[in-house]
Amino acid sequence: MITTSVPFPVDLSLFEGTCHSPSLPSLQRSLGREDLQLQDFCIPVNPYFPTHEIFEDFKQHLESILKYYPSSNRSIACCLAETFGLDPATVVMGNGSTELITWIDLLLIGNRVATPVPTFGLWTDHPAGIGKEVCTWHLHPADNFQLDVAEFVEFVRHVEADTVVLCNPNNPTGACLDQGPMTCLLDALADLKLIVIDESFIDFAEEEFIPSVADEATGRENVIVLKSLGKNCGLHGIRAGYAVANPRLAQRLRTALPQWNVNAMTEALIRALSSHQTEYEFARRLAVADRRRMEQSLRSLPGVTVFPSRANFVYVQVPAPIDGVTLRNWLLCEYGYLVRECGNKLGSDSSYFRLAARPAEQVEALLDALSTAFRHFGYGLDIHASRRADKMVT
Amino acid sequence: MITTSVPFPVDLSLFEGTCHSPSLPSLQRSLGREDLQLQDFCIPVNPYFPTHEIFEDFKQHLESILKYYPSSNRSIACCLAETFGLDPATVVMGNGSTELITWIDLLLIGNRVATPVPTFGLWTDHPAGIGKEVCTWHLHPADNFQLDVAEFVEFVRHVEADTVVLCNPNNPTGACLDQGPMTCLLDALADLKLIVIDESFIDFAEEEFIPSVADEATGRENVIVLKSLGKNCGLHGIRAGYAVANPRLAQRLRTALPQWNVNAMTEALIRALSSHQTEYEFARRLAVADRRRMEQSLRSLPGVTVFPSRANFVYVQVPAPIDGVTLRNWLLCEYGYLVRECGNKLGSDSSYFRLAARPAEQVEALLDALSTAFRHFGYGLDIHASRRADKMVT
Repeated sequence: MITTSVPFPVDLSLFEGTCHSPSLPSLQRSLGREDLQLQDFCIPVNPYFPTHEIFEDFKQHLESILKYYPSSNRSIACCLAETFGLDPATVVMGNGSTELITWIDLLLIGNRVATPVPTFGLWTDHPAGIGKEVCTWHLHPADNFQLDVAEFVEFVRHVEADTVVLCNPNNPTGACLDQGPMTCLLDALADLKLIVIDESFIDFAEEEFIPSVADEATGRENVIVLKSLGKNCGLHGIRAGYAVANPRLAQRLRTALPQWNVNAMTEALIRALSSHQTEYEFARRLAVADRRRMEQSLRSLPGVTVFPSRANFVYVQVPAPIDGVTLRNWLLCEYGYLVRECGNKLGSDSSYFRLAARPAEQVEALLDALSTAFRHFGYGLDIHASRRADKMVT
Repeated sequence: MITTSVPFPVDLSLFEGTCHSPSLPSLQRSLGREDLQLQDFCIPVNPYFPTHEIFEDFKQHLESILKYYPSSNRSIACCLAETFGLDPATVVMGNGSTELITWIDLLLIGNRVATPVPTFGLWTDHPAGIGKEVCTWHLHPADNFQLDVAEFVEFVRHVEADTVVLCNPNNPTGACLDQGPMTCLLDALADLKLIVIDESFIDFAEEEFIPSVADEATGRENVIVLKSLGKNCGLHGIRAGYAVANPRLAQRLRTALPQWNVNAMTEALIRALSSHQTEYEFARRLAVADRRRMEQSLRSLPGVTVFPSRANFVYVQVPAPIDGVTLRNWLLCEYGYLVRECGNKLGSDSSYFRLAARPAEQVEALLDALSTAFRHFGYGLDIHASRRADKMVT
């Protein structure tokens, strides 16, 4: 469906038939015009990394990077482990965390998986898709979607789950458990077959410290921690993630994975990281500051509920009578702003949005657009007027 | 082991602990000097594609390519299918053919796999590694390693294999079955659980036609054809391959694979291919011409046996008393030339080399180096002198 009477005549049918968002480039291509640039608030890309200098180096060596096979998986994992101060025996490189999730589900999880929702869709859909039972524990907006460890452990015992999957920080809510409560959870469930802690967004939790449990996972029998390199480093397109676990679990996963699963661009990033850690740290802190500022700015918008986030995105709820899909389409077609409407996420609904943290001026522009949208869709008007406005656009 | 008294003091220990070659970049890095450039005759990279124009376009858009998620697997497969005139329902995108091999072995092959050797190592090692029985049929230098279909079918029946894997053209020998005998083989084995035809190098078989059976595979119940995009397009580093099979087999594979397994650089290549097919065809023919010329040039070298190739590499045997590993190390350290010594390939030995096809002037340089090496290692000298020379370098 393309409406040509709007400033950004995006092909909205691209949203159909996927339980995720269509890619920004595919939406951009559907415009058929390079002068109309879409602005992304959907994918939480770190805009400060890689630095201009690193990108220039990639460009200069692009032929030699792409024309030859990368090093062996093991050699790349060693380089990464050295950079991050990890034992190489505990590190497994993946073609994005998606590949690691797929193989963990296939090889390591038990028959009954407990996970809080909302969460990253693959963690509920994939185990269910391969015949596992998925038991969902609903997080509540009244608690800011914060997990109560004791209650969750009780739930795990009650449903007799043998596996737990936890995104920390949670995606899409941004809620994050600190190391203390997380250790309590790991202790309480030390008898389970497997606990997966998906820390894909944990580098954006705080400026001063990263509440990861990767270090202590390697000393436990049943814990795997997942990390994303693509997300942290602002290169979602390269597909790069890794798992950290005790050497036995790591070895089991490493042996099963395709022997050469890491592409040469990822190797180039990992080698660049080893000599640009200061720049990465600087970029990471800037991204955290952006999220703090964005969270604060969004709170100034009447009617919007903003949930405290410790990731590089903010989870918000828009007020009734605004319909989420209508709002998403309107922002895209009127302003060229892509936002993530979370109606298709288990434990969420269409009134919830995940907004990627962005530099202040972009957030201000989004807030202006949202204010206009709210007025347009009748928020704050009397019920009769709001219904009329709603009918005009749906 | 680094010998500093040679022109190219490469770290030869990188060859240890891998049954494949170390990557060219890792050998280059071990030199620690950018002024000493190694010359690759190991990886059969198509030097004529992508064109300079395509690379410039990649560089110009590198940030937007790498910063955002690529399109869905299905949408990328559709684009590829359209370019190659295939039915999208028959195409499955993989993170390199390695990923497809891993999953085909896991999901689709039977318990007893028959395959001619020498062949691509993963096809013997991986099935065996996951507990399948691998029955190898030895190809012979006297037949130029050409497969006799009737004899091989008899072997398959004799060992009661339920699965056949065939690299066509074969890697490392370059021998290739035409469509006629290949169809005979598929007909004769139509009752097997699975036949995999790995056509990773088939685009380099001939200038005028590509003897692929991908088209007819889709009409058969038990055939999967594997194709490599990275190899064909001269971008080994991006990890890109695809499988073609009937929609039922394709769907089974597609459903099991990680949901997002294709990286954004691969998507960029596939989209570039759709509008640069003429340039690809031109590059492909140049690469075939290089191989023809290289084969002919190598035949001028006394003592070397050159096997007819229909891939973008040439399989050769060097004369006694020359030791393959010694020759490989000498070419690398004296000239900076990396060649693939095939001593660790099943059905091959250390006297065999796979030499990547290269433009004429590079081949001439390699021939000069090989002539010098042969003299150095005593080929053509009396036995006493050759033994003395051998002792000096091993």
